Amino acid sequence: MTDWFTEKQTEHVGVTMAIEETLHSEKTAFQQLDMVKTRQFGNMLLLDGMVMTTEKDEFVYHEMVTHVPLFTHPHPKHVLVVGGGDGGAIREVLKHPSVEKATLVEIDGKVIEYAKKYLPTIAGSLSDNRVEVKVDDGFAHIAHAKEAYDVIMVDSTEPVGPAVKLFERGFYEGIARALKPDGLFVAQTDNPWFQPELLAKVYTDIQEIFPITRVYTANIPTYPSGLWTFTIGSKQYDPTKVASTRFHTLETKYYTPALHMAAFALPKFVQDLLK
Amino acid sequence: MTDWFTEKQTEHVGVTMAIEETLHSEKTAFQQLDMVKTRQFGNMLLLDGMVMTTEKDEFVYHEMVTHVPLFTHPHPKHVLVVGGGDGGAIREVLKHPSVEKATLVEIDGKVIEYAKKYLPTIAGSLSDNRVEVKVDDGFAHIAHAKEAYDVIMVDSTEPVGPAVKLFERGFYEGIARALKPDGLFVAQTDNPWFQPELLAKVYTDIQEIFPITRVYTANIPTYPSGLWTFTIGSKQYDPTKVASTRFHTLETKYYTPALHMAAFALPKFVQDLLK
Repeated sequence: MTDWFTEKQTEHVGVTMAIEETLHSEKTAFQQLDMVKTRQFGNMLLLDGMVMTTEKDEFVYHEMVTHVPLFTHPHPKHVLVVGGGDGGAIREVLKHPSVEKATLVEIDGKVIEYAKKYLPTIAGSLSDNRVEVKVDDGFAHIAHAKEAYDVIMVDSTEPVGPAVKLFERGFYEGIARALKPDGLFVAQTDNPWFQPELLAKVYTDIQEIFPITRVYTANIPTYPSGLWTFTIGSKQYDPTKVASTRFHTLETKYYTPALHMAAFALPKFVQDLLK
Repeated sequence: MTDWFTEKQTEHVGVTMAIEETLHSEKTAFQQLDMVKTRQFGNMLLLDGMVMTTEKDEFVYHEMVTHVPLFTHPHPKHVLVVGGGDGGAIREVLKHPSVEKATLVEIDGKVIEYAKKYLPTIAGSLSDNRVEVKVDDGFAHIAHAKEAYDVIMVDSTEPVGPAVKLFERGFYEGIARALKPDGLFVAQTDNPWFQPELLAKVYTDIQEIFPITRVYTANIPTYPSGLWTFTIGSKQYDPTKVASTRFHTLETKYYTPALHMAAFALPKFVQDLLK
């Protein structure tokens, strides 16, 4: 008999998936962590019952959270990933030859441990010698950093549990201080179908702090509504005005330079949320 | 107690929705028809247990299946919708002032009947005096039409039940004959995550018949994977090269001229399917 896992994405809608096997379950110091083997999407990491990443569709999120900001910056050398303990964003960061150091600050060491064990194609790059892994509170790390990073990626869970602080205005002010004078950052900002107020609030907060604020989207089948948003705050470089000579060839499954540009063309109802 | 409806989108993954009330259930001459009231998406039409349209997210599909081909054609006068008995595509077609006549050919009169009753915001335009409604087999209708239409939209169900013939090469050959010498058509071509072979096959078939073949996408939360594809076959006009002066202002919730262009930038893995 097949077990089914269901994530209630809202009170009234959910996704349900056939589960072959539960690989690990644990209440960590921060959240409930489950690693399961699904029949459709391969191994899947759940935190507090929400789908974080799966082997089959993780490339969309990780390519889009990484390559859009990293191609926007003309010479990213030091990159910080806040959250992202599965290692997928780091794997994509390392595809950019200009990157000399990639720092990961993940609050929950258990996420890293079990990603390495059960999601090796995602977490494999965490042992690269350009990578520094810190098990620490991202909010506190940002609060102590000054002009340290070219690009920061906020690869957080949804705003429940340990990630609540990562959606607050004070966090974005800290990020502005932690970035170099020409730095930029990106945050995952959930979906506009079920969480329109969240995107609108975060956009407003970021826009009050950064001179350039842009929202882009990607299709992620295992995330609520399938339409995911990312918001960039930038001090100098505009992600919608990247010179075509900037793009170098990368091995990707979702990202292309044309899609980079196209991802900023928002559905009308999403545009309207940002007014 | 709340009832839940689950559509198994593949053998291993599904969407589940809270149902307030079942409004109508009937086995028609062609398929199982259910109209239910969902808590998340308003009233929803199911055919053979598959989500066809909901009040809350229908605008995406109907705007994108309509406005992309209709803005591509410089002066669409006579438009045919094959399927689409809910009336949503017709509603959008009528927003184009050049359209003199919009013909709907739906095989199942019960779809039209219950859409009018329970989806009035979608089906309301079917009584417009520019609209001709025929309850007939779309395949046969196409087989008998010669150079009759400027734009044809194939607004079919998935390729099971009565719609199987609408995914066959012979149907596209019929469409080519039914179109005027500068005509074009669009078909919904399912999602590339769970049905990659279908998209690849349809694309190949259409490309062998039409000089211009283009695929574009839209995000539809209630459809499998959330990423839907549409394929255009065109005799003369390229949907990726529409002069900006062609676009006139429409009241929309998803479509914009910028999104029209952006929708043709495909994820890398979708591009690769079309090689």
